Amino acid sequence: MSKSKKSKLPVILITNDDGIMAPGIRSLVEAVKDLGKVVVVAPDKPQSGMGHAITIGHPLRLQPVAIFEGVEAWQCSGTPVDCVKLAVDKVLHRKPDICLSGINHGANHSINVIYSGTMSAAVEAAIESIPSAGFSLLDHSVEADFTGARQYARLVVQQMLKTKLDKHTVLNVNIPAVDAELIKGVKICKQAYAKYEEDFIQRSDPNGKKYFWLTGEFVNFDKGRDSDVWALEHNYVSVVPVQFDLTNYVLKSKLEKTWKF
Amino acid sequence: MSKSKKSKLPVILITNDDGIMAPGIRSLVEAVKDLGKVVVVAPDKPQSGMGHAITIGHPLRLQPVAIFEGVEAWQCSGTPVDCVKLAVDKVLHRKPDICLSGINHGANHSINVIYSGTMSAAVEAAIESIPSAGFSLLDHSVEADFTGARQYARLVVQQMLKTKLDKHTVLNVNIPAVDAELIKGVKICKQAYAKYEEDFIQRSDPNGKKYFWLTGEFVNFDKGRDSDVWALEHNYVSVVPVQFDLTNYVLKSKLEKTWKF
Repeated sequence: MSKSKKSKLPVILITNDDGIMAPGIRSLVEAVKDLGKVVVVAPDKPQSGMGHAITIGHPLRLQPVAIFEGVEAWQCSGTPVDCVKLAVDKVLHRKPDICLSGINHGANHSINVIYSGTMSAAVEAAIESIPSAGFSLLDHSVEADFTGARQYARLVVQQMLKTKLDKHTVLNVNIPAVDAELIKGVKICKQAYAKYEEDFIQRSDPNGKKYFWLTGEFVNFDKGRDSDVWALEHNYVSVVPVQFDLTNYVLKSKLEKTWKF
Repeated sequence: MSKSKKSKLPVILITNDDGIMAPGIRSLVEAVKDLGKVVVVAPDKPQSGMGHAITIGHPLRLQPVAIFEGVEAWQCSGTPVDCVKLAVDKVLHRKPDICLSGINHGANHSINVIYSGTMSAAVEAAIESIPSAGFSLLDHSVEADFTGARQYARLVVQQMLKTKLDKHTVLNVNIPAVDAELIKGVKICKQAYAKYEEDFIQRSDPNGKKYFWLTGEFVNFDKGRDSDVWALEHNYVSVVPVQFDLTNYVLKSKLEKTWKF
């Protein structure tokens, strides 16, 4: 490809939270690398559950790595959100046309969007006026089969690239862990109302001091057929548009009328 | 106070992200300790900018500490969100009536709500059906004067305790860094549309290898008089009701009509 041809291709920033060595990010790179100029900036170690954490107490490292054939890639010592910030300021020196995050090993539907480093990276991009999408496969294992996820991630990215997207667009895309041919299609959904019921496991260390492991059971309270959990249970890929204005406008109106100080 | 009287008092869980030794959490405890049975579970070290991070890769420690007179307090090795989860499951063995977070040293208005450990702890409580509020003073310094913040935090908590609040209520309360008598009152606001323009500082270590420090300039794009930034600039305490359903319903409707796969 000539340089002039390549320069007209959209710049696609790819990151994740499972770390640059995870099979999921390799699947995402493979799925879209002919759709634009792909640049990868991803954590140098797993960063699951980091939410929207940023690194403010110590400095960050950034190293080039040659692990994706023909694709510029950097590993970063920080969080997924740090990766997006560093990519724009110090790697690309511009905003990419879109930012993709994933493919995550494990679900980021419903309330998981809040804890997820994968989705926080996508949200960070949108804050920075870069349309973005996070992709997650409902299979935690390292050996997960990404065939269906790769196929649908590509379809969603193609749709994003041919649509005039609002610059603050964020899509939370989850893919059911079934054979690709069993996936029924794509559903635009709302975030299910669900949460984890915590259950810390308590153990004692060799000195007799207590420590706790976070565990919990996922509980879905949402009975609607318009949620991401419903779609995934019925073998659809779920796409939830996400926003970063967290204002609860309904409660705002109510408090304005009733709270007097 | 007799035990029966005390048992009817609301249970108030207090946490923060600056760590249990920060002056801000002490101010919050002092501001509300006669309004209920206060229990503190807070990080054992600063956890600013941790967002909604949870600790999943290693275990957590929890130690009782006697630093607030007459108030049960525990320090936790985890994030602010971990503190809330552990407090409910392993300290209180019940849901508190309300959860308060702060008083943070530094602003958590506008987009800061997303990065803030203080606010993420409050959001976590609301996910767990505990009405909550995060408090932040617009002064980063350790020597900050919390007089006004303490006074208004108490007013907001009194209002919360006498109101029948929805169990998922989260309030993001910011207090201007001015003398208490200059504060004009409380305004219910929306989250301002603002962001940071990143500017990483690049340095070299003694081995000649590069490292980066995250810095950035806060830029407010919101010209409205209904935002938290506006209220604070005009010496009002801002109260933004926050939600954890991140679905962008406007974009959802649009994509449902226009996206075909």
